[in-house]
Amino acid sequence: MYQTLEETHLRFFSSIVGGNHCFADQERCREYGHDETEDLVFPPQVVLRPGNAWDVGAILKYCSEHSIPVTPLGARTGLSGGALSLQGGVGLSMERFNTIVEIDENNMQVIVEPAVIVQELQEAVAAKGLYYAPDPASRGTCWIGGNLAENSGGPRAVKYGVTKDWVLNLEVVLPNGEIMQTGANTLKNSTGYNLTQLFVGSEGTLGVITKATLKLIPLPTKNLLMLIPFDSAINACAAVAAIFKAGVTPSAMEFMERDAIELAMKFTGSNSIELNSNTQAHLLVEVDGNLEEPLMNDCERIMSVVEVHGAGEILFADSQAQKDALWFLRRRVGEAVKAASVYKEEDTVVPRFRLPELLAGVKEIGGKYGFRSVCYGHAGDGNLHVNILKGELDEKVWNDSLPIAIKEIFELTVGLGGTLSGEHGIGHVQKNYMDIAFTESTLQLMWGLKKVFDPQLIMNPGKVFPDRYWTKSEC
Amino acid sequence: MYQTLEETHLRFFSSIVGGNHCFADQERCREYGHDETEDLVFPPQVVLRPGNAWDVGAILKYCSEHSIPVTPLGARTGLSGGALSLQGGVGLSMERFNTIVEIDENNMQVIVEPAVIVQELQEAVAAKGLYYAPDPASRGTCWIGGNLAENSGGPRAVKYGVTKDWVLNLEVVLPNGEIMQTGANTLKNSTGYNLTQLFVGSEGTLGVITKATLKLIPLPTKNLLMLIPFDSAINACAAVAAIFKAGVTPSAMEFMERDAIELAMKFTGSNSIELNSNTQAHLLVEVDGNLEEPLMNDCERIMSVVEVHGAGEILFADSQAQKDALWFLRRRVGEAVKAASVYKEEDTVVPRFRLPELLAGVKEIGGKYGFRSVCYGHAGDGNLHVNILKGELDEKVWNDSLPIAIKEIFELTVGLGGTLSGEHGIGHVQKNYMDIAFTESTLQLMWGLKKVFDPQLIMNPGKVFPDRYWTKSEC
Repeated sequence: MYQTLEETHLRFFSSIVGGNHCFADQERCREYGHDETEDLVFPPQVVLRPGNAWDVGAILKYCSEHSIPVTPLGARTGLSGGALSLQGGVGLSMERFNTIVEIDENNMQVIVEPAVIVQELQEAVAAKGLYYAPDPASRGTCWIGGNLAENSGGPRAVKYGVTKDWVLNLEVVLPNGEIMQTGANTLKNSTGYNLTQLFVGSEGTLGVITKATLKLIPLPTKNLLMLIPFDSAINACAAVAAIFKAGVTPSAMEFMERDAIELAMKFTGSNSIELNSNTQAHLLVEVDGNLEEPLMNDCERIMSVVEVHGAGEILFADSQAQKDALWFLRRRVGEAVKAASVYKEEDTVVPRFRLPELLAGVKEIGGKYGFRSVCYGHAGDGNLHVNILKGELDEKVWNDSLPIAIKEIFELTVGLGGTLSGEHGIGHVQKNYMDIAFTESTLQLMWGLKKVFDPQLIMNPGKVFPDRYWTKSEC
Repeated sequence: MYQTLEETHLRFFSSIVGGNHCFADQERCREYGHDETEDLVFPPQVVLRPGNAWDVGAILKYCSEHSIPVTPLGARTGLSGGALSLQGGVGLSMERFNTIVEIDENNMQVIVEPAVIVQELQEAVAAKGLYYAPDPASRGTCWIGGNLAENSGGPRAVKYGVTKDWVLNLEVVLPNGEIMQTGANTLKNSTGYNLTQLFVGSEGTLGVITKATLKLIPLPTKNLLMLIPFDSAINACAAVAAIFKAGVTPSAMEFMERDAIELAMKFTGSNSIELNSNTQAHLLVEVDGNLEEPLMNDCERIMSVVEVHGAGEILFADSQAQKDALWFLRRRVGEAVKAASVYKEEDTVVPRFRLPELLAGVKEIGGKYGFRSVCYGHAGDGNLHVNILKGELDEKVWNDSLPIAIKEIFELTVGLGGTLSGEHGIGHVQKNYMDIAFTESTLQLMWGLKKVFDPQLIMNPGKVFPDRYWTKSEC
């Protein structure tokens, strides 16, 4: 790995984006060298802030010709290290692509650039009575471009699907500098291979997204929210599948272990929930729609199901303020857990009925290696965020045992019909576990696809594929 | 193209599938040599009926090694010629893969083999209170495998999405003989490239699907259906987008020109609809859910919208028998139109607000070249089936003008933000129009993906890509 970028390269980049959008100073590069993944920092050698797709094209073409690594940078809120410039090179910050190009009310579509904050997109379309559902916990800061790159989910995915389910068409720039549409702005499309879905979730390894056409739906106008305590976390998990079996599709179905909610209350200074001493876990369940009566109906069905599974006294959020307080708490769990200790987070996902087995298995593995774990996540999707905390653990034990424990957790997950990541992506920190989910020949196939788009392997090198893929190539 | 397959090849195939599942006689090959696309017949040289994925693997591996073309065969109800054995070779009939492997009520998933009839799948899961929504007009005969290959839609796609939106995971056999899972049986997945979505809609050009894990949802228990007449087809189209803008998402939103409904009534001997002499088109609109009141509510909103757009007297289907009669008529429109004349069908799709422009443009192009056209389709998705009828037209005029007219229709479609096919696929009959939807470099990119999966180009040769791709290669 080289340390400085040649002066000729910098001059070229500066000529494309302008001197005030090209930075090579150490401080700035360091700032662009991390996301929200642990305390990892891998700075690019130069940060470029292109202003349009043609500039992106010129940069990528040049980098392909000169084998310079390019890491697309979004809001850097990612949790798998996708935005780390592992091999230095260009940090391609998309921050100037921050426009909502068009809200097309007639066709219920929005054309958006990648640096638009997800919450701002949601609010802009909501003002026109429209809904864009995917909203990760970080929706107030994350960008739509990162959501597309990682195929983000969030609490509403359980009813409305993940990011991929909302994407109709993308404008992308390929490593050879060409600007391309992946599809058409239509709800249906059986015309050639689905390049759109290949790009979504490809974590910046195939090209750079410069524009997206997203589907919208009419904004649901009403919702009801309830917090359901359980004396047993396993029972809470078991109730999840039972609720769906009762014919209800909630618009959110979140699971939080007691520790998660306690840490979040401490972290935010909130006392919005009274925790019974027996409570071991909560489900936060929302239903939405346009009429009160069917929602009440759904809630009654949910209540009768959770009762059978040993639920305690249910808290109904009876004002917008109370709903906001509960969601605020849920959305801060991640940060709270991470503030509590050195940690490692995994984004396991299984078929939802297998959740109790996953949770029990995670605890068992934790017990074996002496780790404390705090689990929470989108239980309706079978998506459990497992936070392994270092706490007071000895440094050597932590470093030696952690990879083994994580491997066991992933083997358990895959054994239950699940996989490594539900919504965070593989990025840097999960890549060496990919062999647990895929055979070598399937990885080779994916690698073949990568090389069709990016024959010089400049795009986000070191991500998604295990290390051996990157060391044998001379990128 | 060669005429007979060498005896050694036949002996090998017979040793794999058994003599009673290997046919090379002309009559049988001819039977397997057509689908529902016009009167086209391209027989394979041998029909094989493998019994399991390993046999499929052995066949594909052998064919790769000997450069023998393979055309996967489903129920052969396709409308783009995807099942035509253009280059002879092996017709790989999947008919023995006809098992619903498991209906997993706990996880709301079904594992199914490709030769299961879509309606039978729907009925099997409905018996357990579950719903698989995609149902093309041919659902009584078409197979789930063909639906996956073409990314089929149908009337419910407008609310519930097309086939791709229901697929969690596929078991596929690659041309090199390997059996592979494309993903995991989870609702969310951000683990590597989305191979599942690359396979869906790839029209048998990448490999052979031998098993699919599909998502299910709770079965909606109630629906309301109404038939809305308009004096102007353009007004009917304009009402479509307006209904969605009013905040209603119908579970079906079908458009039929007067001619379409008249031909269907004549074809089926039905008189279930009284046609007012001024009526030029109908919308067939369904709403579904679990409670009567919100559905009545939706219908009222729809009624107030269509009134503004000049609707005539609305027919409410007030019994299951009447609903069945209306759907029966709608589902037979395709056959009825095709029985009326030599025809050519296109599967155009645009953003739904552009439908009136598409319809007007199609009529204008028809006028220019002297064609009569009958249009119908899934208006809620902007998906208009355009049937161009030969009628009394002179053979030479028909042959000379048709390709030019179709090209103009597709140019119009793409100019309106749409594309060539919404749900039928490109297959054989649309492939030479692909340049209208894609640049050469995008097609090259897709071709590169094809070659990663199928380096010997044995899989369904002659499909999807324009002729020049197939003639320059020596497959």
